[in-house]
Amino acid sequence: MVAIADVQAFLDETFPLSPNIVEAVGDRQARIRHPVDHTHLRPGGTVSGPTMMALADSSAYVAIFSEFGILPMAVTTSLNINFLNRPAAGVDLIAAAELLKVGRRLVVVDVRIYSDGNAAVVAQASVTYSIPPRSQA
Amino acid sequence: MVAIADVQAFLDETFPLSPNIVEAVGDRQARIRHPVDHTHLRPGGTVSGPTMMALADSSAYVAIFSEFGILPMAVTTSLNINFLNRPAAGVDLIAAAELLKVGRRLVVVDVRIYSDGNAAVVAQASVTYSIPPRSQA
Amino acid sequence: MVAIADVQAFLDETFPLSPNIVEAVGDRQARIRHPVDHTHLRPGGTVSGPTMMALADSSAYVAIFSEFGILPMAVTTSLNINFLNRPAAGVDLIAAAELLKVGRRLVVVDVRIYSDGNAAVVAQASVTYSIPPRSQA
Amino acid sequence: MVAIADVQAFLDETFPLSPNIVEAVGDRQARIRHPVDHTHLRPGGTVSGPTMMALADSSAYVAIFSEFGILPMAVTTSLNINFLNRPAAGVDLIAAAELLKVGRRLVVVDVRIYSDGNAAVVAQASVTYSIPPRSQA
Repeated sequence: MVAIADVQAFLDETFPLSPNIVEAVGDRQARIRHPVDHTHLRPGGTVSGPTMMALADSSAYVAIFSEFGILPMAVTTSLNINFLNRPAAGVDLIAAAELLKVGRRLVVVDVRIYSDGNAAVVAQASVTYSIPPRSQA
Repeated sequence: MVAIADVQAFLDETFPLSPNIVEAVGDRQARIRHPVDHTHLRPGGTVSGPTMMALADSSAYVAIFSEFGILPMAVTTSLNINFLNRPAAGVDLIAAAELLKVGRRLVVVDVRIYSDGNAAVVAQASVTYSIPPRSQA
Repeated sequence: MVAIADVQAFLDETFPLSPNIVEAVGDRQARIRHPVDHTHLRPGGTVSGPTMMALADSSAYVAIFSEFGILPMAVTTSLNINFLNRPAAGVDLIAAAELLKVGRRLVVVDVRIYSDGNAAVVAQASVTYSIPPRSQA
Repeated sequence: MVAIADVQAFLDETFPLSPNIVEAVGDRQARIRHPVDHTHLRPGGTVSGPTMMALADSSAYVAIFSEFGILPMAVTTSLNINFLNRPAAGVDLIAAAELLKVGRRLVVVDVRIYSDGNAAVVAQASVTYSIPPRSQA
């Protein structure tokens, strides 16, 4: 079982520019908060696609830690994202990630991004990570 | 026909943090350079996935300008990316984007990312953009 | 509100070779059964990928009917599928489809395929359909 | 180097219902013809999405044979397809598949489907296959 504080410390050290906050990790799931004041906006005033792609990728990474412990060398092999609804203005984004498949080498993660307090899904992503052989991990 | 300098000026004003350089735009294609010294690295010393996703998205956006002129309100509806080969260390990334389909409402763009001077494809993406109705554009 | 029998009759007439059985349609969801004795097998004795892709596509189509009524001219614009677990031998496949986004022109559907009676997800798909303008529908 | 006739014989025996014709295999590429008279049509008279998904998957499979020899136990792990242009009526479909990445365990294949004699891309797919360990192959 991995502790939230340990995951947060790892992320802060590894990705010092990232404002993401780990709210939950465990049971093949993770929930990550992206504070809106750190959000890159695009024309139209909405959160940019790349901000949401990075958030989807990070939340999948952390969900994998719930199963394997902190695993720096896990790498994304593919990511598919659909942008569904415009995020609410001035509201944090929340990413909920859940492992759909845990294989020996590949893990597939379903991610849903919401505006905090809103039920509408802002974006849905499927993210595949490659898990390093144990000796490399 | 859109001029490289105009696209670069638009990007610099709209995304002031982005270091991307427009090298070519026209004929339903775009080529964008991502200077390596601005690249976010991940554990293992490679360019991060989100950096490449952002680059894929930007290069698709610029390729669309080659057809429609600068169109700030074009928005990404979906993106699929496969990470194929580790980028070369210390080398700029080059994204080559090409419109596969130009519909009235949807445009689909194929993107290949390379390490400058290397033939191996680092990542391949398919990006779909929604084109605003003319009155909104 | 569309009736199961009407959807089944439409599918049987339009796709006479398809063995799929509509088990539920409504509330932005659909559930479709694929009888195993009609399943194309691939080397190794498992259900073929194309069989599951066709099932994912069909279940998304029917889920759209729950919102719009029977809409023959809705067309798939993209489909992303991850094959997660080997289907159980000799067991029907069940596809559960749910609309994630209902736009004026695009609908995005999340599909999960199971072996009947098993909790493990066999495949997960994200399917985007284009909805015809009302006059064409 | 694998021979066209051997691949065709393997496909005919393994998938007796498939009408697909191997036109080329080699150099990390394959070209497959799907005769139109065997094509499943959907409402509106176009070739169905599942027909094209099956063709994309098959052509990727055969392209992999160009690298590894006939490898029955290679399995699709994910497939992403964009439907771009309506196929021409009454014309065979041609799928051109090319290996983008050949890893020890994963192979990623780019597929473009055309109507025979037409330059417009009807569909583009990215297909990932898992390669069995050598002892299983």
